[in-house]
Amino acid sequence: MTATAQQLQFIKDSIKTIPDYPKLGILFRDVTSLLEDPKAYAASIQLLADRYRDAGVTKVVGTEARGFLFGAPVALVLGVGFVPVRKPGKLPRKTISETYDLEYGTDSLEIHVDAIQPGEKILVIDDLLATGGTIEATAKLIRRLGGEVTDAAFIINLPELGGEKRLNDLSINCYSLVSFDGH
Amino acid sequence: MTATAQQLQFIKDSIKTIPDYPKLGILFRDVTSLLEDPKAYAASIQLLADRYRDAGVTKVVGTEARGFLFGAPVALVLGVGFVPVRKPGKLPRKTISETYDLEYGTDSLEIHVDAIQPGEKILVIDDLLATGGTIEATAKLIRRLGGEVTDAAFIINLPELGGEKRLNDLSINCYSLVSFDGH
Repeated sequence: MTATAQQLQFIKDSIKTIPDYPKLGILFRDVTSLLEDPKAYAASIQLLADRYRDAGVTKVVGTEARGFLFGAPVALVLGVGFVPVRKPGKLPRKTISETYDLEYGTDSLEIHVDAIQPGEKILVIDDLLATGGTIEATAKLIRRLGGEVTDAAFIINLPELGGEKRLNDLSINCYSLVSFDGH
Repeated sequence: MTATAQQLQFIKDSIKTIPDYPKLGILFRDVTSLLEDPKAYAASIQLLADRYRDAGVTKVVGTEARGFLFGAPVALVLGVGFVPVRKPGKLPRKTISETYDLEYGTDSLEIHVDAIQPGEKILVIDDLLATGGTIEATAKLIRRLGGEVTDAAFIINLPELGGEKRLNDLSINCYSLVSFDGH
């Protein structure tokens, strides 16, 4: 294996799988075990930052709460600002909101209206790409503020859930460090 | 001013104050404006990491969600693992829980039981020290697992709310980069 392939396998091995969580039949991929392993965590951040180092990114956006754990460190390594996208009522300045579908019902995400300037090039980072619903809502928020979103990056992709196709249809390229079959 | 005093003033100036949020009469200190400024954010992380570099810390613990934004990067700089403390039902492995008082009612925090080994030296990091309730609950969780907690670090301290005294009474030293009068 190349150095990177070895790193990616090391990262994948650091992610524990929890059977039947949050409900029967689901294999939950647990990034908290990656966070506890400083070498795996550092390698994850470095690989994501390296990929976008020359991409002209002006800010990184991450969604509450696990997206903060990867988006914020990548922003620090790239030397750009970090903008949090949060659940309703958590951001103190003026916000806009987008609603997205859950398995049962809907939820909303908010962003500060002054956090992104028109024409900024925004990289979206989250821990895991499943159906892509939260990232679609996040991209809509950024675009409503005039920001450009061409790329979203993840630690984990669950390809069978179709998130990559959904985001590609919105002209967003997806990159993930590791993939798992099933969901 | 010394270099550090200048850095601390620069960090303080990057934190916006939002009047009457979340309710009338409260001056809300908004760290999201710090996150958007890459120099202020990087300086915050560097100053916290430098302070604890030779302290023998084996893991950093941060509380959902804003604690993730400072604790995780400090863990990465220190080269140690990061352990998230979260709201109920968010952590997939076996957890223990602590309840703490809010202005109206109570809330709970959870930690994975296998995330900390007895004798580990844990640094707790959060964005803001107010009454200290969440940090007290976090320290109790860590100590129930056999971890040592002697230090907690913050970007912002609001001394009038008494959090530092409360944590000192639990044998926890507090350090914050900046302080604001009022609350």
